[in-house]
Amino acid sequence: MAVITITSDYGTRDHYVAALKGALHRELETPQIVDVTHQVEAFNLVEAAFILRNAYHHFPEGSIHLLCVDEEALPGKAHLAMAQNGHYFIAADNGLLSMINPDYKPDQLVAIDLRNAPELTSARDIFARVAAHLARGGKIDLLGRTVSEMKQAALPQPVVRENGKFLIGSVIYVDRFGNLVTNLHEKQVAEIGKGRNLIISLSKGRKIKKILGHYYEEVTDGKLIAIFNASGLLEIAIFKSGSDTLGGATDLLGMGLNDQVNIEFL
Amino acid sequence: MAVITITSDYGTRDHYVAALKGALHRELETPQIVDVTHQVEAFNLVEAAFILRNAYHHFPEGSIHLLCVDEEALPGKAHLAMAQNGHYFIAADNGLLSMINPDYKPDQLVAIDLRNAPELTSARDIFARVAAHLARGGKIDLLGRTVSEMKQAALPQPVVRENGKFLIGSVIYVDRFGNLVTNLHEKQVAEIGKGRNLIISLSKGRKIKKILGHYYEEVTDGKLIAIFNASGLLEIAIFKSGSDTLGGATDLLGMGLNDQVNIEFL
Amino acid sequence: MAVITITSDYGTRDHYVAALKGALHRELETPQIVDVTHQVEAFNLVEAAFILRNAYHHFPEGSIHLLCVDEEALPGKAHLAMAQNGHYFIAADNGLLSMINPDYKPDQLVAIDLRNAPELTSARDIFARVAAHLARGGKIDLLGRTVSEMKQAALPQPVVRENGKFLIGSVIYVDRFGNLVTNLHEKQVAEIGKGRNLIISLSKGRKIKKILGHYYEEVTDGKLIAIFNASGLLEIAIFKSGSDTLGGATDLLGMGLNDQVNIEFL
Repeated sequence: MAVITITSDYGTRDHYVAALKGALHRELETPQIVDVTHQVEAFNLVEAAFILRNAYHHFPEGSIHLLCVDEEALPGKAHLAMAQNGHYFIAADNGLLSMINPDYKPDQLVAIDLRNAPELTSARDIFARVAAHLARGGKIDLLGRTVSEMKQAALPQPVVRENGKFLIGSVIYVDRFGNLVTNLHEKQVAEIGKGRNLIISLSKGRKIKKILGHYYEEVTDGKLIAIFNASGLLEIAIFKSGSDTLGGATDLLGMGLNDQVNIEFL
Repeated sequence: MAVITITSDYGTRDHYVAALKGALHRELETPQIVDVTHQVEAFNLVEAAFILRNAYHHFPEGSIHLLCVDEEALPGKAHLAMAQNGHYFIAADNGLLSMINPDYKPDQLVAIDLRNAPELTSARDIFARVAAHLARGGKIDLLGRTVSEMKQAALPQPVVRENGKFLIGSVIYVDRFGNLVTNLHEKQVAEIGKGRNLIISLSKGRKIKKILGHYYEEVTDGKLIAIFNASGLLEIAIFKSGSDTLGGATDLLGMGLNDQVNIEFL
Repeated sequence: MAVITITSDYGTRDHYVAALKGALHRELETPQIVDVTHQVEAFNLVEAAFILRNAYHHFPEGSIHLLCVDEEALPGKAHLAMAQNGHYFIAADNGLLSMINPDYKPDQLVAIDLRNAPELTSARDIFARVAAHLARGGKIDLLGRTVSEMKQAALPQPVVRENGKFLIGSVIYVDRFGNLVTNLHEKQVAEIGKGRNLIISLSKGRKIKKILGHYYEEVTDGKLIAIFNASGLLEIAIFKSGSDTLGGATDLLGMGLNDQVNIEFL
């Protein structure tokens, strides 16, 4: 039976997460449910997409990922089921699905239509019914009408300047350890940089001259480093940061969401 | 195998939740456990009852709901197992069980007596044994002595004034999005209002003249609305609230727990 | 199938916990995963050990406990798998494993070597593979090379003074209810005290003259008490504390981590 994951802005105090899990347990005898997170900032689609983008590919192919952020359907905003890269994603047509795998098109995309089940009034009940159908091996195109378009949204994109001398990105996520995740992808850095030496410029005049290939090479505790993380994104980090005694890069640099991170190629 | 849910004030940092789940795994080969919440304020019975009341009916009939708030037994305060509305509820006799379904009586009510299992010294171990018995399909009346009384507690009740011209309720819960949930039930509003027009008075002179039937009709982001939520309770909400840029009704109105919400019928 | 528990400093907002659970779902058809906590302070090994030490023995024998705090392997810091007291523990060789059961030696201790699986690059993927092997009943010594030494770390130890007249301990954990857990074990108090009367000295001149055998005997709400908790450790607590209206011992006494708790035997 396929795994069903939940990414939401429900928090963990209210009854919303349990209501969804209860619905899943009504649909399936023994559902396999995994929480991705319920701590997405309310209605923050970019954050939800970013977290799931980093999590989903660790799950087996065929897993079903429910995105419960701004998930209510409205006239002109359908519920969508998308097959992409071997996984299923369920969300409202609010742009979220376009940010999970920005470089891929959907393999299948369906506007969910459960008019034969009018008893399902909330998005949670509809998502549970859809997840159960897919978890049982049901076909995605039985869930509604195949569509070719969905709302597009986009993470901020890096900019190339001066004929490839500069690559200008920004911080798109700050994690629990205070690490700064940027939108600069390993592939783009390699394409633009073509093996040249580089200098990464941060706030307060801080510079880093090397990007480590692996997270934890032999570096000293507390050292400021640049690495490509498991998703291939450039991350500015402090080794072993996040405790009371050793703050993260976000504290040291005073940098956060949307701040610039510039690479100069020499 | 029936689902076992947990509602507690244990938090998620200490070992208490894991200790209970460990005990459940000792009792059952493959228990199906769902967290409702562990973020109930310490010893807050009203909050625990409110959250579970909104969550439990989404689960399949026969589900077993453990209430771990003020859950230690004392002389004169037994552990109770209650069957009600197709579900099982386990708690100490502290008033909690009387607030889950205030309009119903228990179908069965048992003072738990596991004197044949003196090795179970903590409430957690006792709850796990009881849940396992019920999850296996065991009868509730084998768990102890049937009793007819339990401690009664009550959520604050709305007041009718001036022969039905006014219905005066209060806020009983504030959710993650800053929505204000009141104790004014759809049924009571219909009974007292008899279809008359109405004005809802809030703080700061704010008034609302219409209660929406569904949560998300076509309203503008940021609009202050009154709706009946999925549990039939009047909720004062701001559409798409809760993010950094769009505060909830609690912020806009400066209203919180126990503040009055008045309906005037015209 | 054995239970797999996770104790981490990952928090619950980032994708790290889901990435580990996804990996476990790739390894096993229906893994039984229980979160102990993800709220350990970043890189705080003492806290992680303390929480798991109080939780693990509630699980069935043969359970597998993953410790994801400072879990990356480095040259000279291997990943370890330890069998002890009927359970399995997986962690990096950072001292953590020596603090779970400080009084026992490992029954088996293996430096994990998965060089036949070079595709596993992160600690999470390696831990998932190891957990799956053990959960299927695989032998621990197939996971690598048996070793006899691991890094030792230690919780602060109580001191005996004046020939057994004084036993001087300290607070090693403060829980959600504000209870102060000390490093003074029931067994040591009995050995040194030999049944003598005692006075426990706390801050602000507060004294307690009796240690309760059970947590919840008949005491008044708000009373300051000393008890031996389920792990045998002396705990300074306020009965029914932790709510907004009734602060915990930590607030009343102004005491916290590492503060002294002294027993004088009369």
